[in-house]
Amino acid sequence: MKLIRHGRPDQEQPGIILHDQHFDVSAFGEDYNEAFFASDGLRRLAEFVRQNEGRLPKVADGARLGPPVARPSKILCVGLNYADHARETGATPPPEPVLFMKSTTALVGPNDDIIIPRNSVKTDWEVELAVVIGKRASYVTEAQAHEYIAGYALHNDVSEREFQLERSGTWDKGKGCDTFAPVGPFLVTPDEIPDVDNLRLWLSVNGQMMQNGTTANLIFRIPFLISYISQFMTLLPGDIISTGTPAGVGLGFNPPVYLKPGDVVELGIDGLGTSRQVLKSYSKG
Amino acid sequence: MKLIRHGRPDQEQPGIILHDQHFDVSAFGEDYNEAFFASDGLRRLAEFVRQNEGRLPKVADGARLGPPVARPSKILCVGLNYADHARETGATPPPEPVLFMKSTTALVGPNDDIIIPRNSVKTDWEVELAVVIGKRASYVTEAQAHEYIAGYALHNDVSEREFQLERSGTWDKGKGCDTFAPVGPFLVTPDEIPDVDNLRLWLSVNGQMMQNGTTANLIFRIPFLISYISQFMTLLPGDIISTGTPAGVGLGFNPPVYLKPGDVVELGIDGLGTSRQVLKSYSKG
Repeated sequence: MKLIRHGRPDQEQPGIILHDQHFDVSAFGEDYNEAFFASDGLRRLAEFVRQNEGRLPKVADGARLGPPVARPSKILCVGLNYADHARETGATPPPEPVLFMKSTTALVGPNDDIIIPRNSVKTDWEVELAVVIGKRASYVTEAQAHEYIAGYALHNDVSEREFQLERSGTWDKGKGCDTFAPVGPFLVTPDEIPDVDNLRLWLSVNGQMMQNGTTANLIFRIPFLISYISQFMTLLPGDIISTGTPAGVGLGFNPPVYLKPGDVVELGIDGLGTSRQVLKSYSKG
Repeated sequence: MKLIRHGRPDQEQPGIILHDQHFDVSAFGEDYNEAFFASDGLRRLAEFVRQNEGRLPKVADGARLGPPVARPSKILCVGLNYADHARETGATPPPEPVLFMKSTTALVGPNDDIIIPRNSVKTDWEVELAVVIGKRASYVTEAQAHEYIAGYALHNDVSEREFQLERSGTWDKGKGCDTFAPVGPFLVTPDEIPDVDNLRLWLSVNGQMMQNGTTANLIFRIPFLISYISQFMTLLPGDIISTGTPAGVGLGFNPPVYLKPGDVVELGIDGLGTSRQVLKSYSKG
């Protein structure tokens, strides 16, 4: 199943993709939020769709997509989780996962504009595979971890490198700016992804391929990450874990290359769809 | 006005303190959450209380208090914001505020148990003044910042030092463990705090005074912090900013002193009340 949310920001309605077409499931009566996932919503939604297939209204062509899940309690990100990316940033691959948090106010739709923050000079891109948690997870074992996955989604972990690395403190300062988490186009359930450890992921800027990796190169794989994070804090249904980015970010170039207003970022992961963001400067709204 | 939330975890009801007594305001019909603060809830609540004073039911003696605000979109913390604390940790006072995030799943009531996480050996305390945001704040100036404050509350920024400092990555790993954010007993509105820059804050462990500071020693003061953070991300109504801790944490002792099951932590800030937590080990529930 592929879940979408369509409509205006903060007023999105639930939908699904069937046979490559977008259908509205507002009649299901629930947003894809913590309560939905916590109450076996995916199974109930599948049942609703089965009973109503053929009667579901289509979503208008060109309608905006929001993030495929409602604002979660948290977005946890894993840093330096591809050896080639760790190398390009000058870091050593870490002995255990590097975690940081992304403000949930950063969450936007897959094709929304990315706003370059005021005083930003180093806004950068990062294509990532995001995992959405399906049920409350605390001290989960690696073997159990697959039971806690609601699905996967494409994520651009937009990052301001000066804010992140040169402005004192943790990475969070450069990771949570508004619009810095375009997620989607859809949440896909695990049954539709035969091998999550062998997906190509890529990102281009103005048509030039910048990142071209594969999840086969993840240092710490998804079940390990879920288990690991759940040793430090409880993951709630709907929470997002972003699993890290392969080589090819702007910071890794010599000299570094950063995004400017008008740039177009496109990204994709096998089976998880593609997204496209246009860069805007804050002052120009 | 002093706002409380009383009742069982995740089922708290709103209340207020009048003349040192706890009254239930469930009849007001709203929790103290983002929607409440965003819709001028404090003013509406004050009006409700004025019209119903004398008819409000008392909260039963000994009833549990929850955190005085419902789970916010984020808890932002400022590190090393008292020079004496920066010194004791071996850090230089930072040129600009150090920010990190605390998982909102860490939020608990002021007198709830603190659960020492599995495999934790360095669970530590930090008395802090927390600011609750009253309205959406983005690119706010320091001069405007006071308009964005809903009130203040006492916070124990519980921290696992090994997770925070020795386990790769940012501080977030050691700051967001479940129960690591006891907040309250109440949210007090700014009109009841004549001088927020001159409040004593203290913390004791098993009756022995460990921290005894004053907000007069904050390196970066509250209006500056609100303005500063709002340059990096939008603050939402109900969001919590914790402003840092003075000297006297366990990490600062030589050798360091950490919390163990059965320990009792008590803390307080002038005008913001006191709280008390008992340490429990995870395995013993």
